[in-house]
Amino acid sequence: MAGLHVRSVLVTGANRGLGLGFVQHFLKMPNPPQWIFAGCRDPKGQRELQNLASKHPNIIIIQLEVSDPTSIKAAAAKVGEHLGGSGLNLLINNAGMAKPCSLDNETPENMIQVYTTNTVGPLLMGQAFLPLLKKAAQETPGSGLSCSKAAIVNMSSYAGSIEDMYVWEFGQVVSYRCSKAALNMLSKCQSLAYKEHGILCITFHPGWVQTDMTGGPPLTVDDSVQGMLKMLSSISEKETGAFLDWEGKVLPW
Amino acid sequence: MAGLHVRSVLVTGANRGLGLGFVQHFLKMPNPPQWIFAGCRDPKGQRELQNLASKHPNIIIIQLEVSDPTSIKAAAAKVGEHLGGSGLNLLINNAGMAKPCSLDNETPENMIQVYTTNTVGPLLMGQAFLPLLKKAAQETPGSGLSCSKAAIVNMSSYAGSIEDMYVWEFGQVVSYRCSKAALNMLSKCQSLAYKEHGILCITFHPGWVQTDMTGGPPLTVDDSVQGMLKMLSSISEKETGAFLDWEGKVLPW
Ligand SMILES: NC(=O)c1ccc[n+]([C@@H]2O[C@H](COP(=O)([O-])OP(=O)(O)OC[C@H]3O[C@@H](n4cnc5c(N)ncnc54)[C@H](OP(=O)(O)O)[C@@H]3O)[C@@H](O)[C@H]2O)c1
Ligand SMILES: NC(=O)c1ccc[n+]([C@@H]2O[C@H](COP(=O)([O-])OP(=O)(O)OC[C@H]3O[C@@H](n4cnc5c(N)ncnc54)[C@H](OP(=O)(O)O)[C@@H]3O)[C@@H](O)[C@H]2O)c1
Repeated sequence: MAGLHVRSVLVTGANRGLGLGFVQHFLKMPNPPQWIFAGCRDPKGQRELQNLASKHPNIIIIQLEVSDPTSIKAAAAKVGEHLGGSGLNLLINNAGMAKPCSLDNETPENMIQVYTTNTVGPLLMGQAFLPLLKKAAQETPGSGLSCSKAAIVNMSSYAGSIEDMYVWEFGQVVSYRCSKAALNMLSKCQSLAYKEHGILCITFHPGWVQTDMTGGPPLTVDDSVQGMLKMLSSISEKETGAFLDWEGKVLPW
Repeated sequence: MAGLHVRSVLVTGANRGLGLGFVQHFLKMPNPPQWIFAGCRDPKGQRELQNLASKHPNIIIIQLEVSDPTSIKAAAAKVGEHLGGSGLNLLINNAGMAKPCSLDNETPENMIQVYTTNTVGPLLMGQAFLPLLKKAAQETPGSGLSCSKAAIVNMSSYAGSIEDMYVWEFGQVVSYRCSKAALNMLSKCQSLAYKEHGILCITFHPGWVQTDMTGGPPLTVDDSVQGMLKMLSSISEKETGAFLDWEGKVLPW
């Protein structure tokens, strides 16, 4: 395990759930990042994140609505300014949403809203932050790919596995499943297109975690995020384009 | 091989390409369907289809824009009227579109338009025609699933295989790939949810076919459609939820 040493990371949806968990765990690292950009769509209302930022000057809260291209572009410009010429090592596309719905009740509005957030958002984030990710890859020594160098991590879900149809009996959530299968495809596309720029891309299933999205199943945010960070510290070129869970298991598409 | 005996079939995007090929091949069957509903969004402009319909009274041209829920509902009502109490055996969600684009140039507008047509369209078609498909399943004897009884066939693409990333070098078409991966997920959802209603659901790769979409690669519409119809005549319960190509090969998700 090479260890995870990132100078800069951006997490979307960083105000609660897994996104906030990532921010907290980055802070606790023996070598915390110099810049932790915490994207959230409503910075004002976020007491926990604001509180953390007031104690840790390496946290920079960035207004970021991932379904709005203008907000994404503005965020990229702001992050670029803070970095003042250096690159962004790690982009964690964590923001996501689900609309509980059965196949029979699924609506076009749901389908488009969930796709716009969960799939189009990560596409636009990748495009907007590509120059900063490329820069990070160029300024980091070594030829292989790694998350310490430059990487995009897309938070997908096992529910997006067409092969396994995880927890189908628990919830059909067709709009969510379709958006995450499409996100897995996007992630594979990004891995192929961005490899030449030195950027690693993977898609993650965080486990079934206790957050606002799911209610009270077994895994805690802490255990999930710890597992994922351990994975991020160990993966390399071989894993780019993969679909992994928080324990490193390769999941079927 | 049980043979394909459908009393009624609806093909979307039936005015050209593979859709028109399906209509032509259904007409040539030894036992052609009593009703061939040919969906197309602009019935007036379609000389070839109009010509066929004037010679074959079993072709009924139906106005159908699959990105418009109102058009879909109106089409379902019209098809129901024609069927006068009997069900629809086969729904072929063939209409689809692609926007040539690289990952770098992909836009939110492309992403949404292609998803609305290729993924949301088939979802809404399945919902709107479910009562007629259920009816067909109920009125057809035998307990297993088959395309002669009641089936949804979704025209996907090998380009939607996340595992294989078919013809990536030829075209990144991220919006198209994402929409087809999501369509594969939808198809799997439909297969699980509609099985209890006696409806078989599969997703097809038609081969790389000479149509307006692709230019001049090797396979003809005739050979592709003939291959797919042969497959449709032979598949059963075991294949529901599968991703097959025109020759019956199971493709990886
Ligand atoms: N929890 C699980 O078991 C589980 C399982 C599989 C996958 N996942 C995935 O993991 C990711 C995080 O999930 P979570 O469980 O932490 O969910 P969560 O507690 O519901 O948090 C979702 C986060 O995403 C943000 N968000 C939603 N839409 C956004 C938008 N349009 N723009 C910007 N931010 C937006 C939310 O911001 P607001 O506070 O402003 O709404 C919030 O910060 C998601 O992508 C989810 O699909 C979770
Ligand atoms: N050709 C191939 O090699 C290939 C390979 C893999 C998959 N496919 C899939 O096979 C299907 C048929 O493709 P094709 O090659 O026959 O394409 P095509 O020649 O371009 O024909 C597309 C058909 O879909 C219709 N359509 C498009 N958008 C529509 C909408 N919103 N509402 C209603 N109809 C709409 C078109 O109608 P208009 O005439 O009004 O535009 C046309 O009838 C597509 O789903 C495609 O993705 C094709």
